[in-house]
Amino acid sequence: GYAKLDHRRQKRKGFPEVIFGEGKTVDQLYEIFLRLKEKNDTVLATRVDAEKADRVQQTVADVQYNRDARTLLWKRQEGPRYPGYVAIVCAGTSDFPVAEEAAVTAEAFGCNTERIYDVGVAGIHRLFDQLDKIQQADVVVVAAGMEGALASVVGGLVSRPIIAIPTSIGYGANFGGLSALLTMLNSCSTGVSVVNIDNGFGAGYSAGVIIKNKYEKGI
Amino acid sequence: GYAKLDHRRQKRKGFPEVIFGEGKTVDQLYEIFLRLKEKNDTVLATRVDAEKADRVQQTVADVQYNRDARTLLWKRQEGPRYPGYVAIVCAGTSDFPVAEEAAVTAEAFGCNTERIYDVGVAGIHRLFDQLDKIQQADVVVVAAGMEGALASVVGGLVSRPIIAIPTSIGYGANFGGLSALLTMLNSCSTGVSVVNIDNGFGAGYSAGVIIKNKYEKGI
Amino acid sequence: GYAKLDHRRQKRKGFPEVIFGEGKTVDQLYEIFLRLKEKNDTVLATRVDAEKADRVQQTVADVQYNRDARTLLWKRQEGPRYPGYVAIVCAGTSDFPVAEEAAVTAEAFGCNTERIYDVGVAGIHRLFDQLDKIQQADVVVVAAGMEGALASVVGGLVSRPIIAIPTSIGYGANFGGLSALLTMLNSCSTGVSVVNIDNGFGAGYSAGVIIKNKYEKGI
Amino acid sequence: GYAKLDHRRQKRKGFPEVIFGEGKTVDQLYEIFLRLKEKNDTVLATRVDAEKADRVQQTVADVQYNRDARTLLWKRQEGPRYPGYVAIVCAGTSDFPVAEEAAVTAEAFGCNTERIYDVGVAGIHRLFDQLDKIQQADVVVVAAGMEGALASVVGGLVSRPIIAIPTSIGYGANFGGLSALLTMLNSCSTGVSVVNIDNGFGAGYSAGVIIKNKYEKGI
Amino acid sequence: GYAKLDHRRQKRKGFPEVIFGEGKTVDQLYEIFLRLKEKNDTVLATRVDAEKADRVQQTVADVQYNRDARTLLWKRQEGPRYPGYVAIVCAGTSDFPVAEEAAVTAEAFGCNTERIYDVGVAGIHRLFDQLDKIQQADVVVVAAGMEGALASVVGGLVSRPIIAIPTSIGYGANFGGLSALLTMLNSCSTGVSVVNIDNGFGAGYSAGVIIKNKYEKGI
Amino acid sequence: GYAKLDHRRQKRKGFPEVIFGEGKTVDQLYEIFLRLKEKNDTVLATRVDAEKADRVQQTVADVQYNRDARTLLWKRQEGPRYPGYVAIVCAGTSDFPVAEEAAVTAEAFGCNTERIYDVGVAGIHRLFDQLDKIQQADVVVVAAGMEGALASVVGGLVSRPIIAIPTSIGYGANFGGLSALLTMLNSCSTGVSVVNIDNGFGAGYSAGVIIKNKYEKGI
Amino acid sequence: GYAKLDHRRQKRKGFPEVIFGEGKTVDQLYEIFLRLKEKNDTVLATRVDAEKADRVQQTVADVQYNRDARTLLWKRQEGPRYPGYVAIVCAGTSDFPVAEEAAVTAEAFGCNTERIYDVGVAGIHRLFDQLDKIQQADVVVVAAGMEGALASVVGGLVSRPIIAIPTSIGYGANFGGLSALLTMLNSCSTGVSVVNIDNGFGAGYSAGVIIKNKYEKGI
Amino acid sequence: GYAKLDHRRQKRKGFPEVIFGEGKTVDQLYEIFLRLKEKNDTVLATRVDAEKADRVQQTVADVQYNRDARTLLWKRQEGPRYPGYVAIVCAGTSDFPVAEEAAVTAEAFGCNTERIYDVGVAGIHRLFDQLDKIQQADVVVVAAGMEGALASVVGGLVSRPIIAIPTSIGYGANFGGLSALLTMLNSCSTGVSVVNIDNGFGAGYSAGVIIKNKYEKGI
Ligand SMILES: Nc1ncnc2c1ncn2[C@@H]1O[C@H](COP(=O)(O)O)[C@@H](O)[C@H]1O
Ligand SMILES: Nc1ncnc2c1ncn2[C@@H]1O[C@H](COP(=O)(O)O)[C@@H](O)[C@H]1O
Ligand SMILES: Nc1ncnc2c1ncn2[C@@H]1O[C@H](COP(=O)(O)O)[C@@H](O)[C@H]1O
Ligand SMILES: Nc1ncnc2c1ncn2[C@@H]1O[C@H](COP(=O)(O)O)[C@@H](O)[C@H]1O
Ligand SMILES: [Mg+2]
Ligand SMILES: [Mg+2]
Ligand SMILES: [Mg+2]
Ligand SMILES: [Mg+2]
Ligand SMILES: [Mg+2]
Ligand SMILES: [Mg+2]
Ligand SMILES: [Mg+2]
Ligand SMILES: [Mg+2]
Repeated sequence: GYAKLDHRRQKRKGFPEVIFGEGKTVDQLYEIFLRLKEKNDTVLATRVDAEKADRVQQTVADVQYNRDARTLLWKRQEGPRYPGYVAIVCAGTSDFPVAEEAAVTAEAFGCNTERIYDVGVAGIHRLFDQLDKIQQADVVVVAAGMEGALASVVGGLVSRPIIAIPTSIGYGANFGGLSALLTMLNSCSTGVSVVNIDNGFGAGYSAGVIIKNKYEKGI
Repeated sequence: GYAKLDHRRQKRKGFPEVIFGEGKTVDQLYEIFLRLKEKNDTVLATRVDAEKADRVQQTVADVQYNRDARTLLWKRQEGPRYPGYVAIVCAGTSDFPVAEEAAVTAEAFGCNTERIYDVGVAGIHRLFDQLDKIQQADVVVVAAGMEGALASVVGGLVSRPIIAIPTSIGYGANFGGLSALLTMLNSCSTGVSVVNIDNGFGAGYSAGVIIKNKYEKGI
Repeated sequence: GYAKLDHRRQKRKGFPEVIFGEGKTVDQLYEIFLRLKEKNDTVLATRVDAEKADRVQQTVADVQYNRDARTLLWKRQEGPRYPGYVAIVCAGTSDFPVAEEAAVTAEAFGCNTERIYDVGVAGIHRLFDQLDKIQQADVVVVAAGMEGALASVVGGLVSRPIIAIPTSIGYGANFGGLSALLTMLNSCSTGVSVVNIDNGFGAGYSAGVIIKNKYEKGI
Repeated sequence: GYAKLDHRRQKRKGFPEVIFGEGKTVDQLYEIFLRLKEKNDTVLATRVDAEKADRVQQTVADVQYNRDARTLLWKRQEGPRYPGYVAIVCAGTSDFPVAEEAAVTAEAFGCNTERIYDVGVAGIHRLFDQLDKIQQADVVVVAAGMEGALASVVGGLVSRPIIAIPTSIGYGANFGGLSALLTMLNSCSTGVSVVNIDNGFGAGYSAGVIIKNKYEKGI
Repeated sequence: GYAKLDHRRQKRKGFPEVIFGEGKTVDQLYEIFLRLKEKNDTVLATRVDAEKADRVQQTVADVQYNRDARTLLWKRQEGPRYPGYVAIVCAGTSDFPVAEEAAVTAEAFGCNTERIYDVGVAGIHRLFDQLDKIQQADVVVVAAGMEGALASVVGGLVSRPIIAIPTSIGYGANFGGLSALLTMLNSCSTGVSVVNIDNGFGAGYSAGVIIKNKYEKGI
Repeated sequence: GYAKLDHRRQKRKGFPEVIFGEGKTVDQLYEIFLRLKEKNDTVLATRVDAEKADRVQQTVADVQYNRDARTLLWKRQEGPRYPGYVAIVCAGTSDFPVAEEAAVTAEAFGCNTERIYDVGVAGIHRLFDQLDKIQQADVVVVAAGMEGALASVVGGLVSRPIIAIPTSIGYGANFGGLSALLTMLNSCSTGVSVVNIDNGFGAGYSAGVIIKNKYEKGI
Repeated sequence: GYAKLDHRRQKRKGFPEVIFGEGKTVDQLYEIFLRLKEKNDTVLATRVDAEKADRVQQTVADVQYNRDARTLLWKRQEGPRYPGYVAIVCAGTSDFPVAEEAAVTAEAFGCNTERIYDVGVAGIHRLFDQLDKIQQADVVVVAAGMEGALASVVGGLVSRPIIAIPTSIGYGANFGGLSALLTMLNSCSTGVSVVNIDNGFGAGYSAGVIIKNKYEKGI
Repeated sequence: GYAKLDHRRQKRKGFPEVIFGEGKTVDQLYEIFLRLKEKNDTVLATRVDAEKADRVQQTVADVQYNRDARTLLWKRQEGPRYPGYVAIVCAGTSDFPVAEEAAVTAEAFGCNTERIYDVGVAGIHRLFDQLDKIQQADVVVVAAGMEGALASVVGGLVSRPIIAIPTSIGYGANFGGLSALLTMLNSCSTGVSVVNIDNGFGAGYSAGVIIKNKYEKGI
């Protein structure tokens, strides 16, 4: 009744339907996971808390739960990876879970990733120390909360596609991530496009699409 | 005094500094245009009204002014284009100028473009009639105002990177493009990233970066 | 003291006062339910949690509690239904409770309903598969969260009155349903009017009013 | 190029594409008007200022321009009207243009209308004096600015479908019609659905759809 | 340290400092209550939950706790009341606690009150039934949530000073009382001034000030 | 057609309908002014620009136009004034027009006024110099823009009813008067109620109502 | 992995990296605290709840936890203080924790502080009683919630740098501190700059920087 | 009548009242300028357009009008300057006028200034090229529009007090400077305090106060 799974999505989009775990009951998540597993080679669920994860892991073998990213991932078999990599850059320790969600999603897509964490502009030398690794990535994902200035700084230094994720880290006039969101939309640097607040999944997915379209036959 | 041009940008970003014409005086725009022309092979200025355009065109030969996109473009010589193309899709007649700004920018970058205009969801068959051309693009730019639903529909049908531009077309609870912006950030479709309201330049630029990074040696 | 029931509402509005369960104590809800039951043939309460429902069900026979819709419904006797039906369309699994509230309300009004759930634009063929059933309804209710684009797509395809319900499903720049609300208010499709975020009751009621006024003597 | 007219709309929606005049050039409006006139029996354009209207009227015979509603209307021939009528109620003198846009649209749809203007709640007896005419309408459209309370009062007294239009009349904390919009979305009265701020067209259209679906064969 | 009580307030303002209970610890509230009691004849505390109330009541005799209004009130001796009365009108059952806070405050000020509750515009005859009592009051306080239309209706019918309190009752586009607040600020009726959302205390106080200044020597 | 004047308002509210001049045409204003003049002893119009004022003044003798307040006032005969007075206090030179609108309205009501202007908190001694005159008023109206702190300071020092008017003076994060509006609604001082941004008329009217109800037979 | 500490910050900024305790796990906070302690002479952590504080205090000797300010502070040795002092002024009892965070931070910086609490404008004489102490400070920090008017009043009376902290104390149209924030940004008094809502740390830090730069060699 | 000049401000604040030119008539500005000139040694007026400036310059000798900053400045005699300097840093060419307003104000205060313009983060090497000059300033003012990231970058590199000015440069989701304002309030860098959008005057003034208090006897 409540769920009409989109089994043609792999064909149309190149990646199967992904489960949005938030607001689903343990039973709904479990049932949808199994139904997707039947028809697809990869099943990814995001925003899954430990309790829902447990239920799935008890039944399905080889499901990986990433406690930070809050993702559940199952693959029929570990396939080859695309060449190149996605650089996942984040500003502070607190942006870690969002950055991890992006990383897990890109990896589910078949991408390699490089994590470059806690390099926010309050101590900008930390970023310059890692600049080569960022500049040589195929795509760069930047997650930052508070004022989100890191996206603009990276945008000024890197010639690769940049996908910026505002995080909801902050308080007061942060308004739940609005501050970083506006920063990223108004960036004076070029080549930066933006996804929703805390949407690590969306950024990882878009990064994956770019890499897939670049190396299409490379896997 | 007022302008410290960033002549290293071509090297760092793969494209020279672009002039933001809005809020500059005729003289400022003119002077900056000339100074950039000396050191670069391409000069692009956006948000340039007819009066400022005139002033530049009177002096500089071979400058193209696009009255709809409000762009000024000069190239030292017409170079080769990257393979493939950017599909520029827009929802209504009124989104035309923003879509054109995206197209001009992508072309300045060396990309081919396909314009697919006025195919909004109120008459969705118009979109399906053109679906092949959209699905085969290397990157898809979608510009839409009012509620901006077109981005989600395209996002459900296309496996290529999609860059969505909310436009400020609308009235009342549109709040100057906020409605379409929120739509695009919250899209239930995957592979969609977003630029600022009316930022055709940003979308065209990001599309160019993706194509450049895909075909890097293909030009 | 605290409640002055509006016993003339059935006469004036064609349907008795409905109890808004949120923020009422168990005792208040219970007492108001009994007082309305004395003077009316139908009693509907919305936004009733399980505890308040229990209290009423222990005393009153034949009260139906819908756990998803969170509604309590009592009818003195099951009457005939109006001809035709309300199509209740929703975008995702998470919009289910709001859609159910609309369905229960329309049924309490004496309408038939057809539920067409989880057909959001990310997999738009699911909608096209059901289009006939939607196009032939007397009224169409569309519930959608996130960006709420489904309302515009349905609005482009259907010639019947459409009542759109934005739901609060989403996160980040969704701002508690604001995104879908603005989408629906700014829809470029015609024939769409809108109720408050998560107001399944209001949409079901308006659908009921339209059907009642169409078939007035048809019951 | 810029316009892909939706000539199948009459078939799909029961009413041809309507021109949104705002933001179109005189030439664009004129050309689109002529192209629609070729394939349809009714052409309606909204938000048309006097200059654009002139240009169309100089060429096309029998085009009616309503200076208050800012609408241009052409009908191949005056057809019969549906039975019943739409009551168009407005709160103050300043809501007049929006109310007129709703009236013209409903009439273009083939509906009769009754105008009941300047009956806002500051002098509520003016409303009660006209209550019969409102209660016997098939659909009631209520336009109100400032705080928009009239919609709730009408909603408490009338058993017919009510479509509320918030207008942008007001100042200060009115925020361009936001105040009346929120009022109408949050109305404690039932049977009220809402269209965008100043969207007289949308309300008139939805009223037309309801009447058409009621009397379908009655014309 | 943390509290510098304003013992001159009775002299300057005609009423002693009132304790804002929210966010104070049980101990802070208790201590401040005792210190104020020493120097004043009336002590009023608002937004006091049951636990804090208990602590004060265990020590201080003759303290009245109103569980609905969440107020603690102590008077050295019951004094005479001013002539006339404040009418406290509220729209729905859920506005009850805010209306009660207003009533308790006005009574602490020495005013008589008349409570006229649950007379919202969805059933407007309930208001007309009580109109005389409202029209003859010295001051009228109107509390309403959701869209808050009741204030405008009362404002159209009454020639006495009206103080409107928006309450936070509602959901969705109510935005925590913003809807009713904007309604009341934009009221097309005259003689209405407004206090903060849920500020029953402020409205009761202002009503008290008006009565005190009218009858100054009448007590 | 467009105007249904409320000739019973004098009876119901104690003051005749007042014309809101904004958005009315010269002809509408003129016609409504004459029709109200026939049935009432006082006609007040607010938000009237010089052109509309001219048209009325050319025909009607003894109409006073206040260029600062932008009000038109006609009285059949100059009547007696109520005892006491309204103190009109404003913070800066720029708040002058709003303060004048309040003063003219209170005077039209039959009140005496005392103007105490440009005494904002940046130079608070200017306020203390005039404190007696403020404290002895029957009602105090306080108009302030920017952050509007003056209302709180007056509220801390005066035991009379205070009506606060936020003005739209300011820039940047003032958001058209929102800053002063929020200040006044959240005032930690007691006895302050608030009207809409720039609503000098509303404050003057409410002040008039309070004085009228105090001295009812005193005129 | 998750934390790249900025050990050069003392050198660059004159004060080591400060730990933002909110959103960090007990283990993360503990580990970062120890790592910073190794390389620096002062370690400060803000927004630390009792549980996290305990864990650090059990291991590290001489760590001070301020329960009101929610700060953890460790100093290798108690150094000399700069001459002069920071005046920390707050409006109400509830602003106490934010004021304390500012005080602790300034002291960690090596400044003397004077606390002047609960002197809000509702009883302005309390402020005047302490004016000398405020006027003679080197820097003045003002914390205020609700409407935050105290900052403007202090700004009118003091010739020293003033740093204003809006607090989130309030309800309704306070919107979590927005009201006080806008007040402080729009202050008509001069010499006032503003930090984020509830950012006692930021204000204390800025005060410390001003004093340090004034007396640089004075310690 | 309309202006009560605050001639004690020099004494209280160390700088005389400054004229806010916006919204004042040519005559008001002129009169107030002359009256302030009589009693003070410096007169500064901000937000003065060319027409108002002309009127003052025609009468008063030695008045300097800065066309970019839109300031009028008169000094009885050119006095000595404080030691040290204020660094005025801005991000883009368009922030120039706001930066100039800050510079003129600081100079009126008796400070030296260093202008470091157009060094935004899109080309961050331009900032590093000037870092010494910024790090050695006594106070740093940073003006930036769009996303305002420059303030955070400077904040990470400089140990002096930093005053950030968000400018209204930008479009779309910039919302008139809101984006840069939120960035600066939420900065993860320390030692940054913020003034209102476009408030160059406020930042220059606060910088002046800090320098004055540092070198008090140094002039
Ligand atoms: N209460 C606070 N408010 C704002 N920023 C803070 C606060 N406490 C520490 N910080 C800053 O937050 C940064 C730490 O971010 P993170 O990497 O997430 O630990 C440090 O650079 C501090 O300067
Ligand atoms: N879910 C709902 N959403 C909005 N309004 C409702 C809902 N359920 C009932 N109502 C209305 O709320 C009113 C009851 O308010 P109250 O007096 O507080 O019980 C009734 O007149 C109903 O028409
Ligand atoms: N550009 C400015 N921005 C903010 N405040 C200003 C500005 N220029 C002057 N002021 C202040 O505005 C006040 C003048 O207000 P008014 O009485 O309306 O002239 C003075 O106290 C100044 O300190
Ligand atoms: N419910 C309330 N809403 C608004 N203000 C209140 C309320 N109750 C008391 N107050 C005011 O809050 C102030 C006390 O603030 P504080 O110093 O934090 O205790 C007093 O001056 C009261 O006038
Ligand atoms: Mg860190
Ligand atoms: Mg079109
Ligand atoms: Mg689904
Ligand atoms: Mg009227
Ligand atoms: Mg009720
Ligand atoms: Mg002044
Ligand atoms: Mg206190
Ligand atoms: Mg530049």
